[in-house]
Amino acid sequence: MLARPPLVTLLTDFGRLDAYVGVLKAVIAGILPAASVVDLSHDVPRHDIRAGAFHLLAACPYFPLGSIHIAVVDPGVGSNRRLVAVEAGGHYLVGPDNGLLRWIVDRLGPNNWTAVQLTERRYWLDSVSDTFHGRDILAPVAAHLARGVSLDQLGSPVHDLNGVPLPLPIVDGERLRGEIIHVDHFGNACTNIRPGHLSGKVGKSVVSTREHNFPGPLQSYAAVSMGEPLAIWGSTGFLELALREGSAAAILRICRGDDVFVQ
Amino acid sequence: MLARPPLVTLLTDFGRLDAYVGVLKAVIAGILPAASVVDLSHDVPRHDIRAGAFHLLAACPYFPLGSIHIAVVDPGVGSNRRLVAVEAGGHYLVGPDNGLLRWIVDRLGPNNWTAVQLTERRYWLDSVSDTFHGRDILAPVAAHLARGVSLDQLGSPVHDLNGVPLPLPIVDGERLRGEIIHVDHFGNACTNIRPGHLSGKVGKSVVSTREHNFPGPLQSYAAVSMGEPLAIWGSTGFLELALREGSAAAILRICRGDDVFVQ
Amino acid sequence: MLARPPLVTLLTDFGRLDAYVGVLKAVIAGILPAASVVDLSHDVPRHDIRAGAFHLLAACPYFPLGSIHIAVVDPGVGSNRRLVAVEAGGHYLVGPDNGLLRWIVDRLGPNNWTAVQLTERRYWLDSVSDTFHGRDILAPVAAHLARGVSLDQLGSPVHDLNGVPLPLPIVDGERLRGEIIHVDHFGNACTNIRPGHLSGKVGKSVVSTREHNFPGPLQSYAAVSMGEPLAIWGSTGFLELALREGSAAAILRICRGDDVFVQ
Repeated sequence: MLARPPLVTLLTDFGRLDAYVGVLKAVIAGILPAASVVDLSHDVPRHDIRAGAFHLLAACPYFPLGSIHIAVVDPGVGSNRRLVAVEAGGHYLVGPDNGLLRWIVDRLGPNNWTAVQLTERRYWLDSVSDTFHGRDILAPVAAHLARGVSLDQLGSPVHDLNGVPLPLPIVDGERLRGEIIHVDHFGNACTNIRPGHLSGKVGKSVVSTREHNFPGPLQSYAAVSMGEPLAIWGSTGFLELALREGSAAAILRICRGDDVFVQ
Repeated sequence: MLARPPLVTLLTDFGRLDAYVGVLKAVIAGILPAASVVDLSHDVPRHDIRAGAFHLLAACPYFPLGSIHIAVVDPGVGSNRRLVAVEAGGHYLVGPDNGLLRWIVDRLGPNNWTAVQLTERRYWLDSVSDTFHGRDILAPVAAHLARGVSLDQLGSPVHDLNGVPLPLPIVDGERLRGEIIHVDHFGNACTNIRPGHLSGKVGKSVVSTREHNFPGPLQSYAAVSMGEPLAIWGSTGFLELALREGSAAAILRICRGDDVFVQ
Repeated sequence: MLARPPLVTLLTDFGRLDAYVGVLKAVIAGILPAASVVDLSHDVPRHDIRAGAFHLLAACPYFPLGSIHIAVVDPGVGSNRRLVAVEAGGHYLVGPDNGLLRWIVDRLGPNNWTAVQLTERRYWLDSVSDTFHGRDILAPVAAHLARGVSLDQLGSPVHDLNGVPLPLPIVDGERLRGEIIHVDHFGNACTNIRPGHLSGKVGKSVVSTREHNFPGPLQSYAAVSMGEPLAIWGSTGFLELALREGSAAAILRICRGDDVFVQ
């Protein structure tokens, strides 16, 4: 009896109105009936590569080693942009080389990854459309990886990946200046600040953005009253700005890209 | 060969924009690769414990005995609220003890349930965040239950559960007075009235709310003309108020909590 | 050891707010614990049979032979409309006979399908509600099919299916006149025109609708500038009208049912 194949995950901007996601699963099942597929999100805003990159960064490390992550946020579909498969820190990523994979690859294995450009058509569907390479190339390639095909069989080596690295917070006089990199479903604003960036300052900081102050990092939402702001270490390991039982994004008009200051 | 593990279900208010649900599945797969996970809903309105309680009440009885239901609508995350695991009528529930589990536990085994407070950290992730106990505690505990860990290994016994019971309709003079307890995707308004509450009156009732009358209970939407109101026994076993091919909630402005009268 | 059962897919207009979809999966798992279920879409607009028919047409051919597709867009639930199971071209479909299945059956096996009306109650849930035949009849029937029950055990033969065939484009003087049959999540407008309809004209056509012109069919979105219109062969094999990185539907106000001309 064969061992259980690795998990395959899907992250796309396809939405849920159409059956596009179901079709990806159909193609995978056609190649590897035993495949087990998990949805990360299909509600990435259309063509929003940075949002997709954030979700991969937040989710992939929690998956078992060997998992294969298909990511499709691909405004360049049909152009000559590259499609790649990457192994980084024991995880596999398959998607367009447009920056989508950069943050998670840097996190998993900044100096320890291997990638190929997808060129071996024998691992694709027989017929490749102009508009749906997720179905015709990425899903079949991921299914073949899950079947045991090795990375180097999929194409020719690639030695650099496109895309902007995750921005790092910088020291700015007395302050640390970071940035909002994601706003989640709850309206919590995730910064790019990790515990190591604050070192001695944790527990006595004032965090601010757009002239609003957020005391913290605090231990729990319950440390402030309903509707009051706070900073807290979020579940992805970054400092987050929140309102207790409210939406910081909606009420305080915080947006991705806003500066954040800790002092 | 091991027997197939029980189904694990997920009910949350996480939405679908982020990869939080995918991360729950990652954690479960890491502990029990053979786990089979079913989504109940992730679109519970944020922190709406009663909506979550309704969905569990409507869905859990249809699952095979032994299924394990993870429920995360948890405004108190990070505070000292309890997390519990409950066995009721052969089903398992894992979630915060904030009322979310109360209606389904009462339904499955009002005098026949066992519960523990989750205190045994060996069944949690090694690192527990301040903000995502679904990932760090509830999902791993459910996965361990699915692996065969017994309820009493997870923590110390609990003898009462928090939360308000499902409100019962009451006799009010000539009338029965009930309440709208849920409005669904179609705009159908679900009451708390069951067939036993109407006994002799079925088939000749007038149901009303907010001065609108709904003839019924009728056998089928087709018993009235397009756009006309009717009362019908809904799929959850409660009396529902509907418009044929219309939204009672949107057009007649019916809300959860509205009084309903049968006479 | 038994062979892996066929995939079961779900297409509904149930939305995601409620746990209705989870309940379908519960019923299937109760009958066939090894079943593997894939969601096509649950966001079909309420009672929009043509939208459901389009999704089945686009998705089903990509599934492995033997897959069983449950489709529930059923405004007539509880009336005397027929429920059917159909085998067409090696795929199985289970749903109401209201036109929902017509387009995919015509595509898979226009002269080569078999159907039965679902009348054998032994393959249904014991208790059948007035409002949720997806749960009480269609899901259990599909699960029994996946277990190996044959089509003819499910009910009595049916020799015609209801519903309007997919409209075909027609020659109109110098022009071909087609129709928008679907608008997708991206705002791309899918026509009913296939390559065979254009024969000699491909590559030099002007496609127009509502007085907007779309050059094409082109090979890639990148063949035009950002925000510019184009016609392209879509992933479902139909000609599509799109804006590069924009929504043709939102910006140019294109709707399903609009005429399209190729000249």
